[in-house]
Amino acid sequence: MAGLILGVDGGQTSTVALLATRTGKILGTGYGGPANHIHEAGGMERMQRSLRDAVLGAFEQAGILEIAVESACFGMTGGAELIKQVAPQFIRADTLSAYHDVVTALAGASVAAPGIVVIAGTGAIVYGRDRAGNEAKADGWGYLMGDEGSAYDIGLQVLRAAAQARDKRGADTLLQTVVPRFWHKADLAGVRAVLYTDQMTRADIAGLAWVAFCAAESGDKVAQDILANAGQRLAKAANSVIDALKVVGQNPMVYVTGGVFRAGHWVLDPFESNLKHFSPNVEIKMPAFPQVIGALLLAHQQTGAAIDEPFLANLRQTLPARLQNKSAAPNCDDLLV
Amino acid sequence: MAGLILGVDGGQTSTVALLATRTGKILGTGYGGPANHIHEAGGMERMQRSLRDAVLGAFEQAGILEIAVESACFGMTGGAELIKQVAPQFIRADTLSAYHDVVTALAGASVAAPGIVVIAGTGAIVYGRDRAGNEAKADGWGYLMGDEGSAYDIGLQVLRAAAQARDKRGADTLLQTVVPRFWHKADLAGVRAVLYTDQMTRADIAGLAWVAFCAAESGDKVAQDILANAGQRLAKAANSVIDALKVVGQNPMVYVTGGVFRAGHWVLDPFESNLKHFSPNVEIKMPAFPQVIGALLLAHQQTGAAIDEPFLANLRQTLPARLQNKSAAPNCDDLLV
Repeated sequence: MAGLILGVDGGQTSTVALLATRTGKILGTGYGGPANHIHEAGGMERMQRSLRDAVLGAFEQAGILEIAVESACFGMTGGAELIKQVAPQFIRADTLSAYHDVVTALAGASVAAPGIVVIAGTGAIVYGRDRAGNEAKADGWGYLMGDEGSAYDIGLQVLRAAAQARDKRGADTLLQTVVPRFWHKADLAGVRAVLYTDQMTRADIAGLAWVAFCAAESGDKVAQDILANAGQRLAKAANSVIDALKVVGQNPMVYVTGGVFRAGHWVLDPFESNLKHFSPNVEIKMPAFPQVIGALLLAHQQTGAAIDEPFLANLRQTLPARLQNKSAAPNCDDLLV
Repeated sequence: MAGLILGVDGGQTSTVALLATRTGKILGTGYGGPANHIHEAGGMERMQRSLRDAVLGAFEQAGILEIAVESACFGMTGGAELIKQVAPQFIRADTLSAYHDVVTALAGASVAAPGIVVIAGTGAIVYGRDRAGNEAKADGWGYLMGDEGSAYDIGLQVLRAAAQARDKRGADTLLQTVVPRFWHKADLAGVRAVLYTDQMTRADIAGLAWVAFCAAESGDKVAQDILANAGQRLAKAANSVIDALKVVGQNPMVYVTGGVFRAGHWVLDPFESNLKHFSPNVEIKMPAFPQVIGALLLAHQQTGAAIDEPFLANLRQTLPARLQNKSAAPNCDDLLV
């Protein structure tokens, strides 16, 4: 429908769709389930259902019956290439695009400007785009082959450091007592007993990044080193993207997002010093907007319109609080008794 | 039955039982399935079946109808504490013992003498026992929390080093081309595509230790560093056991076993220099016998008998070729074309 734009973020844990006017006023927000694992049995159907739920939810909230827009953009954890086949089953769009979600993450972070986004959540990936439209990527190889500096990676380091200390193979660390407490176990043997069960997910292990933060805050050198190491690994990936885009001598903007950066200066300081050593004029910034707004910005650009200040002001005013993603620093009181 | 002893090795991939006379003549060898994962559904039944198959197989080969021995010893990957309940269902033994298989591994390696055994296969664990019977252990925390320096650990390092080189996050390495070739894939993206499927086991990833060896042999610095690092991690675990047993100043015997040591000097040299730095008089040795012979030696000792040279000569003469475990160094010809 003329005058409407749609941005969708199809993620690993949930899907979000935003329906807005071409002036940037968000009319409706819809949610769906996960949109990944499309190559598993039933995965295609689940992705379609998640996207449909989110899109129809946004139209329903907006009170618009005709499921059609002028321009739509999908940012997808996986299966972006399938969107042109899948999306027409539940939405009409004059123009439709789909990208790997690193593209929409960068667009949201940089307000559709060139730059580099470092995403360090359960996984880790760096993506950049320069003024000429050249792209580069580093890591994102998954939890076995890469994702270095991710929360899962930090979680494994935390478990190993605790076991090393227990065996006196490594330095003594608070992690020995804090990890069992975090998982409500009596000791590391109890941690091990649950670790190898089916109930323990990668997200659970990634949750131990919080433990590293708390131990670091209370002065634990081993935890501080684990977080610093994560910052350095993420910097290495960012440096390789800066290098590939040939923007080393320029002022590259590097946006940092994902749960790992909630550890604050423990990760950011080594990240920054590593980056500046390689490219002195680099600027590190927090993202302007979340990923789904990145999709909406790209949908808007597709209509040929410019992203101007009135448009952004409208977005900011109508963005649902739930998407503003102002997560507080982890609370360590229960852990450090 | 008077005059007969039984040694059993209940392992992760198979179970072996050896029936011998008290003079060390092996009369029969029997095989069974895996004896681990006893806490899974049906795991107890599978363990019992594996043990029964192996034990009855040994008696059948020996042509002995009465399933009874004077002394039996079981070395178990898991569930040693259950053997006293389980074993009487299929064998009568005047004396019966069961240990974690690190104990029988050391007994086999050292011919039941004090010492330290470093086992680095798919997993990694160090176990030691001193003259007074004090025991110490390091690592063995499993593939998420430890097993540092194991073949699985090396395999992950190989995958990561290849991905790092591909991204130009890390040094260039042969592993980039050799890993895909080893798995019959066109490139690292193909490796990634299969890596995250259910078909790919930890043993498959551990198989990449072979790739590291071949790349190291042809001069690849990254692969050499990965293997050296494994040697150092294993040495750290051994050092902590040497320290715990308070044998630092003595001449501790350290036996090395498991597939990782097939990489030869690439692992052994850094292992040795690390160990000697910590405990200068340490001696590194290959195991005298496999684990199942360790169980047989302990069964023999349980009768009150000494392990003398005629007994050992009989063992050596009657040990089945299949258990002599003389695995050749990996062949790299197909990989390094």
